[in-house]
Amino acid sequence: MNELISKRLSTPNTAVQDLLAACAQEQGKLLRPGLFLLFSQLGDQQQQDEKQLFKIAASLELLHRASLIHDDIIDDSPLRHGTITIQADYGKDVAVYAGDLLFTVFFQILIETMNGTPYMEYNASSMKKLLLGELSQMHARFNKSQTIDEYLENIKGKTAALFKLACTEGAYFGHANKETIALASRIGENIGISFQIFDDILDYASNTKILQKPVLEDISQGVYTSPLLFAAAIHPEEFAPYLDKRQSITSQEIKQVAKLVHRYGGVKQAKQLAQTYTEKALADIDQLPQVETTTKIRKIALTLLKRSY
Amino acid sequence: MNELISKRLSTPNTAVQDLLAACAQEQGKLLRPGLFLLFSQLGDQQQQDEKQLFKIAASLELLHRASLIHDDIIDDSPLRHGTITIQADYGKDVAVYAGDLLFTVFFQILIETMNGTPYMEYNASSMKKLLLGELSQMHARFNKSQTIDEYLENIKGKTAALFKLACTEGAYFGHANKETIALASRIGENIGISFQIFDDILDYASNTKILQKPVLEDISQGVYTSPLLFAAAIHPEEFAPYLDKRQSITSQEIKQVAKLVHRYGGVKQAKQLAQTYTEKALADIDQLPQVETTTKIRKIALTLLKRSY
Repeated sequence: MNELISKRLSTPNTAVQDLLAACAQEQGKLLRPGLFLLFSQLGDQQQQDEKQLFKIAASLELLHRASLIHDDIIDDSPLRHGTITIQADYGKDVAVYAGDLLFTVFFQILIETMNGTPYMEYNASSMKKLLLGELSQMHARFNKSQTIDEYLENIKGKTAALFKLACTEGAYFGHANKETIALASRIGENIGISFQIFDDILDYASNTKILQKPVLEDISQGVYTSPLLFAAAIHPEEFAPYLDKRQSITSQEIKQVAKLVHRYGGVKQAKQLAQTYTEKALADIDQLPQVETTTKIRKIALTLLKRSY
Repeated sequence: MNELISKRLSTPNTAVQDLLAACAQEQGKLLRPGLFLLFSQLGDQQQQDEKQLFKIAASLELLHRASLIHDDIIDDSPLRHGTITIQADYGKDVAVYAGDLLFTVFFQILIETMNGTPYMEYNASSMKKLLLGELSQMHARFNKSQTIDEYLENIKGKTAALFKLACTEGAYFGHANKETIALASRIGENIGISFQIFDDILDYASNTKILQKPVLEDISQGVYTSPLLFAAAIHPEEFAPYLDKRQSITSQEIKQVAKLVHRYGGVKQAKQLAQTYTEKALADIDQLPQVETTTKIRKIALTLLKRSY
């Protein structure tokens, strides 16, 4: 995967070679291309074009990385998954164009693999959903009374749209039947929603003494996720004195907020919410053709959604 | 044009409605869609699809605006053509996603109008050239010994690629013949190069007492354009004491630099360089079918390239 991405990002332009090499090397869990390839295995292998599938898998990773590079500009994150981010290494300015360049290479791979098919538009509109989700989340900053429905709408865009795309086009380009494609679409979305809720829960480490860095950042930046929203909905008066400080909230006060989130069952309720979406996904996975790949998909779904926290 | 763009940028998402409305309202000279439509008139009008042409014209404006929004993040510009920029109004964070969103709508219009044609890839690779040009320019910052060839390479990407695309696809989708399309391509590139050189010259107002704001910004940000590069190549030792101060150069010192640029004929040489490209464009315009539209194209080329300075 990284080899293909690296090849696509190579350029005779020496000025930007280093930067592009860094973009190609960024390592993630390759979740989205992984789900894509798994779902493609549910199709008719006789009809499959291995090179095409591999390229589409890479396109999903490129779209994901491009959006991460732009996210990091906004979050001002020096680290992501322990790796120095493009913006910390090359500066905010370069990161803007580097993300743009990855979007372009993403489109080039789509044009190469699916020009003329309706999946061109499906990719573009998924990218649009992703961006609108990010913008909505930004707009909801410091809104203590954001509802869980609004939160869900945002994560459907910013996270689930890409999971949904990966699973749907996996089944489609793997030449699966219509029923499987429809199931893949729902499974992808529900896994995506559950994945994001768990990601948000992970920030509220069970041990509030070792608070995760993201939660400190999220709260001081006004990004309130489901554990906090659930708890604050029950006892708004206890959270208000802290959250009303907005950006000027201290680390000590954030620890207090995290304690309150646990005390009022915010983490517990968020886990239940995630569980609902996991169960929806599992019910649909049960409807897939029961082949070896389906067992793998079920395992991955469960692993992703039962991470330690 | 703005009506179509505004419609494409409308969203049920109330959170980002204002922002998108602002992106749709930004007014420029509509140069790129204008050139596109003019070149389309050189084709067979019987075969033309007016709606398709209008949409493609809008796609060019969207690509241009998206890149401007991201440029403004980097230049930290509060104003562009006298209008407050998206980033000054909504913040740097929103501007990153707003630009991304415009790129997405650009691709959606391409998919709608030319899915399955080779012009999909031509658009993607033009966008890539534009970005590589921007990145190269960024990489060349504070490089006093940048050559004119390197400067030309960068502006071929960051400016001329889009002019070239506009003229070429104008002729193509207007159903012009192959010769006209090939001429359109060269004319577009040469107009683009000349346009950018003149833009850079404009910054060095003839009256150094009323120095244009952009030149102050460009020099302190290390963006050295052709007038400066020409002059500094002749007397590097006179420029070094100023330019070696890099970001900490003062406004007074920048005025001195501008004086030196004039004294050593930098502006004059840059004008000659631009003139070379204008003449190449005019020679090719003479080869086009000599219809009324060609007269308009010639006039526009001359107007663009003989702006007051």
